[in-house]
Amino acid sequence: MGQDHPGRPHHAAVNAGEAGRMKSPNQLSALEAARAIEAGTLTSEALVRACLDRIAERNLDVLAFTATDHELALRHARHADQQTGGVLRGIPFAVKDVIETRDYETAYGSPIYLGHRPRVDAGSVARACENGAVLLGKVATSEFATQTPSNTRNPHDLRHTPGGSSSGSAAAVADCMVPVAFGTQTTASIVRPASYCGVVGYKPTFGFIGTAGLKPLSPTQDTIGLLTRTVEDAAFFAFGLHGARVADRDDLSPRLAICRSGQWEHARPEMIDAVERVAREAQRHGAVVRTITLPREIEDLYDLQARLFAFEARQSLAHERLHDSDKFSERLKQRLAGGLGITPDEYLTMRRRAALARAQLASLFDGVDALLYPPAQGEADAGLADSGSPRFGALWSLLHVPCVSFPVTRGPQGLPIGVQAIGAHGDDARLLAIAAFLARVAADR
Amino acid sequence: MGQDHPGRPHHAAVNAGEAGRMKSPNQLSALEAARAIEAGTLTSEALVRACLDRIAERNLDVLAFTATDHELALRHARHADQQTGGVLRGIPFAVKDVIETRDYETAYGSPIYLGHRPRVDAGSVARACENGAVLLGKVATSEFATQTPSNTRNPHDLRHTPGGSSSGSAAAVADCMVPVAFGTQTTASIVRPASYCGVVGYKPTFGFIGTAGLKPLSPTQDTIGLLTRTVEDAAFFAFGLHGARVADRDDLSPRLAICRSGQWEHARPEMIDAVERVAREAQRHGAVVRTITLPREIEDLYDLQARLFAFEARQSLAHERLHDSDKFSERLKQRLAGGLGITPDEYLTMRRRAALARAQLASLFDGVDALLYPPAQGEADAGLADSGSPRFGALWSLLHVPCVSFPVTRGPQGLPIGVQAIGAHGDDARLLAIAAFLARVAADR
Repeated sequence: MGQDHPGRPHHAAVNAGEAGRMKSPNQLSALEAARAIEAGTLTSEALVRACLDRIAERNLDVLAFTATDHELALRHARHADQQTGGVLRGIPFAVKDVIETRDYETAYGSPIYLGHRPRVDAGSVARACENGAVLLGKVATSEFATQTPSNTRNPHDLRHTPGGSSSGSAAAVADCMVPVAFGTQTTASIVRPASYCGVVGYKPTFGFIGTAGLKPLSPTQDTIGLLTRTVEDAAFFAFGLHGARVADRDDLSPRLAICRSGQWEHARPEMIDAVERVAREAQRHGAVVRTITLPREIEDLYDLQARLFAFEARQSLAHERLHDSDKFSERLKQRLAGGLGITPDEYLTMRRRAALARAQLASLFDGVDALLYPPAQGEADAGLADSGSPRFGALWSLLHVPCVSFPVTRGPQGLPIGVQAIGAHGDDARLLAIAAFLARVAADR
Repeated sequence: MGQDHPGRPHHAAVNAGEAGRMKSPNQLSALEAARAIEAGTLTSEALVRACLDRIAERNLDVLAFTATDHELALRHARHADQQTGGVLRGIPFAVKDVIETRDYETAYGSPIYLGHRPRVDAGSVARACENGAVLLGKVATSEFATQTPSNTRNPHDLRHTPGGSSSGSAAAVADCMVPVAFGTQTTASIVRPASYCGVVGYKPTFGFIGTAGLKPLSPTQDTIGLLTRTVEDAAFFAFGLHGARVADRDDLSPRLAICRSGQWEHARPEMIDAVERVAREAQRHGAVVRTITLPREIEDLYDLQARLFAFEARQSLAHERLHDSDKFSERLKQRLAGGLGITPDEYLTMRRRAALARAQLASLFDGVDALLYPPAQGEADAGLADSGSPRFGALWSLLHVPCVSFPVTRGPQGLPIGVQAIGAHGDDARLLAIAAFLARVAADR
């Protein structure tokens, strides 16, 4: 998680708490930083400077950030240092460039929008700032959060993709340029890059982080989430941007289910090993684990999700498609063309089937607290032209349930592999507690 | 429906078809106009001119349109006249000013956004244009589609409210300034003004008309819909903007249920009479009608809907709230302040309850094709400071089901009263067919 490339220790190191390790401020988790700021042993200004230095040192290689404004970020940090209160006071965060910001260009990963400056910050960004967080800058996205990648590189091996579409978010957090970044997921755009970059990816229940100011793609699925280095940070920031602190939970031992699906045939052996290892370690620490398969009605939604996406995206990007499609990638053109033959009747039928499946999935969660599932096929592949398959996110994005991908191990190429925990609709607090437990027992091993 | 104020007949009248009536082009329904254009008996240019003349004649009184561009609209109309194909070819439409348009100021009903020009058309607008429709201009909205009204007046009696928040949409269509207008509904912002202005209001299944380019308020409820003068027009335009023609349906006799709820105590006698009259006439024409009450779990959602709205709107408008709240109305300030004490845990619990209720409502529709329900308390009240209570829309907006309000009768003050038909999630085509049947039998009487 970026420790392969530690920053030069020219910042005053900070005692990171329980473990007593000394870390450069940019290496602190958001929660460690918040505690240090609260205790007066760290200033937001020092933290932001450390992050900016890390960006200066590494971004020309990693290409995660698309824009920073040092003076502005430092001004906000100094302001935070003069305040009291604010759950997220002084914590720097980055924003995926499909989410609008007033102080930074928002280009949605498309040449069509070069130089575009929205009039206001997205609701999620404004809420984070309202609760004390400090906007550090924008991070790269694939084209309109679809499949044509940004030029971002995997910080663990620059020859490999960081995954997409939240490529910049995952890479920036993994490389300790920033402790938290907003990402977005319509299919697997948070959990996949999180797994590839060895960080935590939290896709909340649909709508938990409000989508005002997000460029819509498939608005009945588009979800804003977070990339962080610990599960606790994801919970801290997601609840913190709503002005709340996460309650301590101790409802573990959780009831878990390894959730086999037809998609598993696409998972590499090392990924299946990782899922099973997490299950084993969880069991050893008191969890109840069984294996389930998905009902056919839910399995079948995999193909449906892609068609529903195409129908909606074709409409969301209709203006650009009609007026600027010469600036679309070929891949995007083809993706949108996929929506061409879908009738409104078929669309509405798909929506009904998805609604029925949500109810069916809810009853599946009556006996299970979280499902275990791959977030990606395996390690990040070499090359930057393809950001990997989104197949392991499709069902859960369509079904609106919360998902957390957390780092577990490394694969045969030495790159990170994560595992995904999936909770019931609206059960984000419990899911985050379970994922924190799972990440802990997986790391203890 | 505007016939109280016929335009001077200085346009070549058009034979409106089956009934053989001669109408000025602006009085034609969208479907009548489309057939006349297809038959070569009407040009889009003549239709657009008639609409623009009607606007010039009446808008200073009604204050429905906030902007038109004659040259631009006529250019697009002439272009449509030179084309073939396009389901909506040549049909003028207006857009509620919370929906973004490149060629017109989009101020969202707020002084904060005076002069704001978005970079692209909303997806819904672009799709309508792609299928041949001609954008005539923007129509008034209450402040950010919340409760502080625009200055629009009810064309049936200028001293009365047209209802809100889609005030301009309903008034413009009622006054025959335009046959179709986009409106939006988060609580009752389409069905209420439709009833007050004696037009049809169609709030589709959540997401059927894509929300890209709509200023979000409560994104898990915000729905784009249509105001038209006939139910057939709503179906024609909603499917037409997706490039499709509505299939003829003849699955009537429908199974209907008068849906009594705790909200009915707020409905005036004339409204309850109207609902019962529709039921009676439908029965006389072959429908099966029974009366049901709502389960407590659904009834209780009425209060929940307002709290969920406040939580989401507080976040959607966070930037404006933090930087420009001196330009908010007092009413909006108070409404957003209502979200202040709601914790994210409470919010997620509300979302879970809404999801459960959606499943419960789906099973209620196993034996019923459509519910009959008031769209408003009664006639439009006198005065423009208040646009009426949204209470008859709250449940159905939260539950994502399609609703059609259609004109039925007039109340003691001589103003229109509509009735609302509500269908199952995704069952829009059937609901529209049933509503067309109901509007027909109610008018036959």
